[in-house]
Amino acid sequence: MIGAGWAARFVLNGCDVRLYDPKPDAARVVAEVLENARSAYEQLTLAPLPAEGSLTLVDSLEEAVEGVDLVQESAPERLELKRDLLAAADRAADPDTLVCSSTSGLRPTELQREMRRPERFLVAHPFNPVYLLPLVELCGGARTAPDAVEQARNAFASVGMHPLVVRTEIDGFLADRLLEALWREALWLVRDEVATTAEIDDAIRYGAGLRWAFMGGEDGMRHFLRQFGPALAWPWTKLTDVPELTDELVEAIATQSDEQAGGTSVRELERLRDRVLVRFLQALRVEETGAGATLAAWERGLLVAGSPAETNGDAPLELHRRRVPADWIDYNGHVHESRYLQLFAEATDALLGGLGIDREYLAVGGSYFTVETHLSHLRQLEAGDRVHVTTQVLGSDEKRLHVFHVLFRDGEPEPLATAEQMLLHVDTTTGRAAPARDDLRRRVEELTRRHASVPRPERAGRAVGSR
Amino acid sequence: MIGAGWAARFVLNGCDVRLYDPKPDAARVVAEVLENARSAYEQLTLAPLPAEGSLTLVDSLEEAVEGVDLVQESAPERLELKRDLLAAADRAADPDTLVCSSTSGLRPTELQREMRRPERFLVAHPFNPVYLLPLVELCGGARTAPDAVEQARNAFASVGMHPLVVRTEIDGFLADRLLEALWREALWLVRDEVATTAEIDDAIRYGAGLRWAFMGGEDGMRHFLRQFGPALAWPWTKLTDVPELTDELVEAIATQSDEQAGGTSVRELERLRDRVLVRFLQALRVEETGAGATLAAWERGLLVAGSPAETNGDAPLELHRRRVPADWIDYNGHVHESRYLQLFAEATDALLGGLGIDREYLAVGGSYFTVETHLSHLRQLEAGDRVHVTTQVLGSDEKRLHVFHVLFRDGEPEPLATAEQMLLHVDTTTGRAAPARDDLRRRVEELTRRHASVPRPERAGRAVGSR
Repeated sequence: MIGAGWAARFVLNGCDVRLYDPKPDAARVVAEVLENARSAYEQLTLAPLPAEGSLTLVDSLEEAVEGVDLVQESAPERLELKRDLLAAADRAADPDTLVCSSTSGLRPTELQREMRRPERFLVAHPFNPVYLLPLVELCGGARTAPDAVEQARNAFASVGMHPLVVRTEIDGFLADRLLEALWREALWLVRDEVATTAEIDDAIRYGAGLRWAFMGGEDGMRHFLRQFGPALAWPWTKLTDVPELTDELVEAIATQSDEQAGGTSVRELERLRDRVLVRFLQALRVEETGAGATLAAWERGLLVAGSPAETNGDAPLELHRRRVPADWIDYNGHVHESRYLQLFAEATDALLGGLGIDREYLAVGGSYFTVETHLSHLRQLEAGDRVHVTTQVLGSDEKRLHVFHVLFRDGEPEPLATAEQMLLHVDTTTGRAAPARDDLRRRVEELTRRHASVPRPERAGRAVGSR
Repeated sequence: MIGAGWAARFVLNGCDVRLYDPKPDAARVVAEVLENARSAYEQLTLAPLPAEGSLTLVDSLEEAVEGVDLVQESAPERLELKRDLLAAADRAADPDTLVCSSTSGLRPTELQREMRRPERFLVAHPFNPVYLLPLVELCGGARTAPDAVEQARNAFASVGMHPLVVRTEIDGFLADRLLEALWREALWLVRDEVATTAEIDDAIRYGAGLRWAFMGGEDGMRHFLRQFGPALAWPWTKLTDVPELTDELVEAIATQSDEQAGGTSVRELERLRDRVLVRFLQALRVEETGAGATLAAWERGLLVAGSPAETNGDAPLELHRRRVPADWIDYNGHVHESRYLQLFAEATDALLGGLGIDREYLAVGGSYFTVETHLSHLRQLEAGDRVHVTTQVLGSDEKRLHVFHVLFRDGEPEPLATAEQMLLHVDTTTGRAAPARDDLRRRVEELTRRHASVPRPERAGRAVGSR
């Protein structure tokens, strides 16, 4: 799962990946994970994703690592196994290839012992699902070169992650030390029959767990000291000992877990997990806090790298495609009407981006604002629909841009909805209508001229209630 | 803070509250918390909140508890103090009043020792911010009556909480046992200078912390056993001992925490916390999982209790008011155009609700769908604006309903935007236009007749680009 998650993150960020996994079902698992990741990224961002990198399953470790920039080992947590794999990868890879291990607890100094170039090795410990959670703990061993850590920090940041350099080499690094403490206490509570696994989960997810995704407000160490400092001396916990994992305890936990899952499949739970994580990441992005700041930085990079709007001869432009996410459904079981306008507005944004309205243009104070919209709802969208919008310029002058959008379900000729919009170019420093800059104006004129030969849509110029 | 949070949750759920707090700044603190809670609830739900309960600050404990249904003690965590307060409350309250304590760790059997009616006492331990986090741990002592626990469960569920009954009386109940284990490990990491408080926070909030709000996918005990079971025997943690809270350690933590806060005030951090929590709760509601299921259940209760749409003589109806939330701002720094349509659609929903389209009507297969909208954008909304929408019926027949909405900033005569909409009544079982049910049709006719004397809006009947 960790290896497949890495592959998905790299491929969706435009990196070519070669994957070696001797397990017979590796191809199926990685295809499933990649499909989940694609679906999550579609909902995660409207920034233009790069063209996907290639994903090639290969038959040997040597074939996987030859000539690559970065090796990411994600084998089971057995020291000897990992040590052998890393030494073999080191022998087959180029001298300047970075070699990383996904281990969640083994020390890098132990792992790099058999390597010829230990200075190029470090731990890069991710969290599942790797394609959505931004954290990657970086930890070098005694023989790791400092510039290998720096290089890894840049590489992982470029695929939307938050590298956290663990400065002191300890077993479990930081995150799993904390996780293990929590779970160990939970294990005692189950063993002593104080609580079931479901009750323990509820004690977290309805309360403090809601805050741990951002640690805002009075979370953090200072508050903890105030609230718990004196209580630390109280004999609350049984942390002085490790509960014995007897067959009875393992069985009790497994039974309670199965009752909680209630027959939902693991894949289904993973998709639910991804949908919720996507919304959390978007919520945090609005405030540019925690993982939302990482997402915002990644999106800004994508926007700069983004390709200009496609052109389509003298036919209407096809500027915007996406899938209708599940949370667009309203209490009637339908897609809320404001989402139709959102789709059209996204197409307008794509048009303006293609015409050259970029960050720099906005920064000097020019932009188009929508002043009027006429929407026609013809047929209904459903959750999961793949849709696209075509865009035709009906007219323009130095300030105005008159466009007509049509929304289609992919592969169907009948439109779902139409939108006619009048945009006005505004000098945002004064808030008044003002002519577009010359270079923008020329591109608008050129597109208007090209679209003049496209038949005028039947619904253009229509008022509400007219036939 | 906890007492003020309780007051806010009860008041916003329509309960009258009497609050006794001897601290001189109590009135200011509770007013600030209530204002934050109001702002959070406005963004949390579109369901009709009940009229606020009253909030009265009183001068004695006796005055606070006399004749109330529920007493909620939230004094500092000192056993003697709480025991005395609870005994005094017990003497002054009615015999059937429920008496609860917010203690995060003291045992109910100890707390109820001096009470005359210990059977009516239990612990109800909430989490900050009390008005947003749904968890409340309920724990009775040796002399608590089982039906007091049941009664408390219903009372707290009715104000939107998730009561978790702790079946075995232990110090720290469930949540704080788990929290303390986590923080204790964190304290060791700071004391040993392995990591700073900021690095520890990052190890949580960029990774597993994002999942703890819902514990979806492979979270939970079974996965833990698979991943950590064998490692439990490894000597990772230093949990066998309590780190001594020396002056140096306290100072180091305080300094690191201040650096993290970077000069942001506590109130500001609290507002950020609330905004993020609101979005998390909404994200979870979409999936009706965890705290989102609690929110959905609470909203369904509010909808049933909701009042019918107000009428306004023969003038346009004023059906919808709200504040523009901060996350409606797009990359231009303005409110995204689709949000204007969302406001108008919310006004349409309020109109339809007022006309009698309720859950029962929808269930038998009738509803109005929007088929056309003409929007005019006249002036710009800003984040934080308080706005309202007026709604005028321009015409109707047995299937069609033609309305005109105008959006205003409160207190200003100039409109911000207008929307003309044509709605069509649909039989949702066939998906075809069909006449409205007789009782609905009569109310539509009555409203259309009343609005016939209202002047027709200047922008009605307008097509895009016409003058």
